[in-house]
Amino acid sequence: MKVAFIGLGVMGYPMAGHLAKANIDVCVYNRSHEKALAWQAEFGGSVATTPALAAQGCDLVFCCVGNDDDVRQVTLGENGILAGMPQGSIFVDHTTASAELARELASVALTHGQYFLDAPVSGGQAGAENGVLTVMCGGDAATFAKAQPVMDAYARFSQLMGPVGSGQLAKMVNQICIAGVVQGLAEGFNFAEKVGLDPKALVETISKGAAGSWQMENRYQTMFAGEYDFGFAVDWMRKDLGIAFSEADKHDVALPMTKMVDGFYQEIQENGGNRWDTSSLISRFKK
Amino acid sequence: MKVAFIGLGVMGYPMAGHLAKANIDVCVYNRSHEKALAWQAEFGGSVATTPALAAQGCDLVFCCVGNDDDVRQVTLGENGILAGMPQGSIFVDHTTASAELARELASVALTHGQYFLDAPVSGGQAGAENGVLTVMCGGDAATFAKAQPVMDAYARFSQLMGPVGSGQLAKMVNQICIAGVVQGLAEGFNFAEKVGLDPKALVETISKGAAGSWQMENRYQTMFAGEYDFGFAVDWMRKDLGIAFSEADKHDVALPMTKMVDGFYQEIQENGGNRWDTSSLISRFKK
Repeated sequence: MKVAFIGLGVMGYPMAGHLAKANIDVCVYNRSHEKALAWQAEFGGSVATTPALAAQGCDLVFCCVGNDDDVRQVTLGENGILAGMPQGSIFVDHTTASAELARELASVALTHGQYFLDAPVSGGQAGAENGVLTVMCGGDAATFAKAQPVMDAYARFSQLMGPVGSGQLAKMVNQICIAGVVQGLAEGFNFAEKVGLDPKALVETISKGAAGSWQMENRYQTMFAGEYDFGFAVDWMRKDLGIAFSEADKHDVALPMTKMVDGFYQEIQENGGNRWDTSSLISRFKK
Repeated sequence: MKVAFIGLGVMGYPMAGHLAKANIDVCVYNRSHEKALAWQAEFGGSVATTPALAAQGCDLVFCCVGNDDDVRQVTLGENGILAGMPQGSIFVDHTTASAELARELASVALTHGQYFLDAPVSGGQAGAENGVLTVMCGGDAATFAKAQPVMDAYARFSQLMGPVGSGQLAKMVNQICIAGVVQGLAEGFNFAEKVGLDPKALVETISKGAAGSWQMENRYQTMFAGEYDFGFAVDWMRKDLGIAFSEADKHDVALPMTKMVDGFYQEIQENGGNRWDTSSLISRFKK
């Protein structure tokens, strides 16, 4: 089996690495070529100078870049992934992007006799490094069945959510839910701090019940400490929420709390916290 | 050991029952006497006609009623709990009430040579019935050490959070966190429904990661189904949030999302959903 991985950022770099470690023949492409050479020095495989060249002769091509425009740039046109991929091969886009883009790419791929899965992930940088990502896929069952065993190299769990675009839609729901959880923790923990509660005793107690969440267990220490250096940045969260707002508008879906939280993230950006993680919502209260 | 239990509502009735089933001599008091007689018919023990009479000769007296005023009514005055309790005995208030009331009662108890714990619970009606409540206590360590083994009859976990009032403060944090989690789910699940995602596949996937929460796992089916009949009512949630807002005002603590969610609960009340459970936040979107 031969695969390509396009985009060696904080997610793509270790994901492609897990593929190589699984003894798969991996060709990588990255916008900055030095990063691709560094990846090759660490994991072997081969390096291409365009996405199309990387995709040549591949059974599957994976991509994990920044946003809709970045995906279009590496996918379409004469140097793009779809121009290089063989007929019958599968393009798996791990980028968190719009459902619209997923449908557009699936449609273009189809005209080339290629298959497409939108497959945004959750689990962050740590999940990518440890190979325990969750993958939310949109596409047809046969394509998913072929891609799943390969994605197992870096995923703990992957699931077909429905037709093309459904992976992106599920990721939007994921981010909306996180906005609520984290804002609740920001307000609750700030309250706790101001009234003098002990964080450890508090979380040990309330995390066992109806208030419990992954974020509460995994972020309370750093939130109380005012440390926001754990991967998923405010800039990316706002990008993801923007995608959700566009989709929501199409369906006349209200997201009042999510919009409020997005406004708080905007404040954090304006104060220079672009690279802080999503739990930095509590920073607004710490002044 | 002899104990009294004051208040046989949806929480107190099964809690007192667990004490009786643990072979503790329990005397109960309830505002409506019929309920107390029904309890006695089911569990044995004895029934008193005033809180003071129930408290006579007891080592511990437990109370679980509606709000601050209800607690004052059964606690203070010549027919109140503190008038009946022996010197050296302990009054444990399981009502979710203000931290101020806890400090006031602890102070009155002290003048009688009695001890006090504020001890609000989480786990809801099901937790009370199954004897798996979480208890957040405020008071001194010696008093907590004496009360804890008795509370084990209905608690899976109890913890001393700090001085008197700390149990109530921890409960406030608990409710603030729940407001955020549930509103996130309401917006996320409504979005999911409108864009046509499959609830089961969605939750199976995103509940494993950073969006995961107790509420997501335990309430998603009923939220998608529009069923809000699972115990903790909107009326009670608004009471609890009101207590949190009063406390927050004293410390100049902002709770913007929690206030927004409280407003949504108010809307639900105005539309007759007083007895719906807290997950009914999604009902606003289902019209």
